[in-house]
Amino acid sequence: MKHYELLRRLARPAETKIVLLVLDGVGDLRTAEQPQTPLARAATPNLDALAARSSLGRIVPVAPGITPGSGPGHLALFGYDPLDPEADIGRGVLEALGADMEVRRGDVVARGNYATADDGGRLTDRRAGRIPTAESERLTGVLREALAEDPPPGAEVVLRHGEGHRFVLLLRGEGLAAEVADTDPQREGVPPLQAEATDPRAETTARAVRHLVSVAERALAAEPRANRVLLRGFSSLPHLPSMTGLYGLRCGAFAGYPLYRGVAAACGMELVPCGKQPEETFAAAAGRWPDFDYLFLHVKKADMAGEDGDFEAKVEAIEAVDRALPRLLEAGPDVLAITGDHSTPVPMRLHSWHPVPLLIAAATAYADRTTAFDEDHATAGHLGTIPSHHLMGLLLAHAGRLAKYGA
Amino acid sequence: MKHYELLRRLARPAETKIVLLVLDGVGDLRTAEQPQTPLARAATPNLDALAARSSLGRIVPVAPGITPGSGPGHLALFGYDPLDPEADIGRGVLEALGADMEVRRGDVVARGNYATADDGGRLTDRRAGRIPTAESERLTGVLREALAEDPPPGAEVVLRHGEGHRFVLLLRGEGLAAEVADTDPQREGVPPLQAEATDPRAETTARAVRHLVSVAERALAAEPRANRVLLRGFSSLPHLPSMTGLYGLRCGAFAGYPLYRGVAAACGMELVPCGKQPEETFAAAAGRWPDFDYLFLHVKKADMAGEDGDFEAKVEAIEAVDRALPRLLEAGPDVLAITGDHSTPVPMRLHSWHPVPLLIAAATAYADRTTAFDEDHATAGHLGTIPSHHLMGLLLAHAGRLAKYGA
Repeated sequence: MKHYELLRRLARPAETKIVLLVLDGVGDLRTAEQPQTPLARAATPNLDALAARSSLGRIVPVAPGITPGSGPGHLALFGYDPLDPEADIGRGVLEALGADMEVRRGDVVARGNYATADDGGRLTDRRAGRIPTAESERLTGVLREALAEDPPPGAEVVLRHGEGHRFVLLLRGEGLAAEVADTDPQREGVPPLQAEATDPRAETTARAVRHLVSVAERALAAEPRANRVLLRGFSSLPHLPSMTGLYGLRCGAFAGYPLYRGVAAACGMELVPCGKQPEETFAAAAGRWPDFDYLFLHVKKADMAGEDGDFEAKVEAIEAVDRALPRLLEAGPDVLAITGDHSTPVPMRLHSWHPVPLLIAAATAYADRTTAFDEDHATAGHLGTIPSHHLMGLLLAHAGRLAKYGA
Repeated sequence: MKHYELLRRLARPAETKIVLLVLDGVGDLRTAEQPQTPLARAATPNLDALAARSSLGRIVPVAPGITPGSGPGHLALFGYDPLDPEADIGRGVLEALGADMEVRRGDVVARGNYATADDGGRLTDRRAGRIPTAESERLTGVLREALAEDPPPGAEVVLRHGEGHRFVLLLRGEGLAAEVADTDPQREGVPPLQAEATDPRAETTARAVRHLVSVAERALAAEPRANRVLLRGFSSLPHLPSMTGLYGLRCGAFAGYPLYRGVAAACGMELVPCGKQPEETFAAAAGRWPDFDYLFLHVKKADMAGEDGDFEAKVEAIEAVDRALPRLLEAGPDVLAITGDHSTPVPMRLHSWHPVPLLIAAATAYADRTTAFDEDHATAGHLGTIPSHHLMGLLLAHAGRLAKYGA
């Protein structure tokens, strides 16, 4: 049985509010060269006071040694086993999320190449001579205009140029499906393939893609190099059961970056516009307080500082959260969890596999002897070290939203 | 998905060296009668200094309460789930390994009994009157000579006498397979069964066994009691995917005892001759340093002392490792893990299920507040308590040999 199935069976309603505050990449390392972690160094009076009345512990995003991308890291926090194939996020979607495109449930995304074909329509260069990014940006503008004049039936089109010869195509509309075969034949000397549905559900989508490709070929006909488009990796956000359906939670996502909004959308959360600073995020959440039972709040900066190898910036990012925290506490969450989707240690400048500190504040939380929110206190905390995708069960339990298992 | 499949998918090359130092049976108990464990008591300045800059934690070989044999204990350390049926080590192989026979990949091993048959060839005693071990040793010498004169086609034969009426048969050669039915009919009054292949792959092997049995019957014809041999439990080392194939690691095993060499061989490691003392083992590893990416070093003595209930001997075994340690550190492993395959507590004189201390030294290791390598510090360490077969993921991660999971 999937873990969320167990939770779904036990879920019951309650008048409680859960806040999951994700400090992206917050976990860090203690080494000879970096004797304190940013969490240990930061002046965080509000977090420390909270820690003193909370339970601390740690989460392991995937498994020991496995470094998660942001997608699996967040899906796990939302209660989905990141190793379950259903939680796999397709390449097209990843490309779009990585390019800061907003991907919604039901959108179909593909990776595109500009390519060169000869007069007979046979491909002579699948990468259009690796045109520079500026050229790709111009071509994408040309396509956008042509498609605005002659849009495909039943689908709104979003295009975003990528690096070099690459671009991303997103289709939005009712009844679209990602079961469309690649149009990239993966070799030269033959024409691009027709877009074909591999499942009857995707017929509308395939038709829209064929229309779009023919518009593109007309619009690019005079281009010396990039006179064709090749599409591959059609995919959608994973078809996960929504958190609303599973637990009866009205879920709101307050995240300033598209990747996190995309993953939240995949879990059925409502996406609420908000800024990127913690005080903006917390204010946005407070402003929509009556509308949700579960509020996912994402703060990005600690991760960026970790990737930059900037210790002081990571400390400051944590202190900024601490300064804004009273605002969030005033709203009065019944359960407040603070953690990260993974560690991004400053000495590594990368995501890592190291366990991530976790704090849970709730009336039913064991007030362990931890007096600060950092790696050492978290290691000693009452929550122990658990897989990330087990956090959801703890949040529901502390919110009084889980019935007893068995009699 | 098997855990090693996940690791295989993420594995990537690097110029790093991993050392796994197994102190067999090192974990122990603190009780009213034994207020310090051998690890806590031993004077280990080198291990303590290492602990101060390393992460500590614990491994659980199989599951809480499950005491592993040395086979499952080591397979788990090498990244194989010891509960997976593919990791099951057949009885014949275990008997051979336990009898200190060298078992290689592809060898076929069976357990043998000396037995008595009447003039009509019908078994009258399946255990030859439970002849003494000295008698079994003599008979095994007789068989060895007869087979040297008339060896079976396509197979080298190794025989080892066991306790009482028992012996072990090992066949080595190209294209052998263990799918051979027992020749022991499990009752008296009937003749021994003919060796028959239960899979066409084992025809050559069955033919060799039939030849061998007929040579044995002629050689033993004049024996008053032991005039027949019965064979059962034909088996080979498990067909595990090799660590080289899985992770691209060139693996060397430095172990002084056949059982550990056998398990290492089952995982595709190269077996390097070395002595049994820690300084010999470490010197052998240093001597072959350029040839391997993963070096498994096995030190046996702590386990033997535990089984003998000899506290002082176990302390001395640990101190001997500590004295030799600088030699190993000089070689410069990028990742060094020190642990055991299981605990062998002195008060129990047996293998046990208790979690085993684990130390990982690496540039990316969290330097926790642990200042000595013993059970108490390990319990408080940053690595937490993990299943043994998850250790491999941690070692690969610290060695920079795992890509990120998802984006």
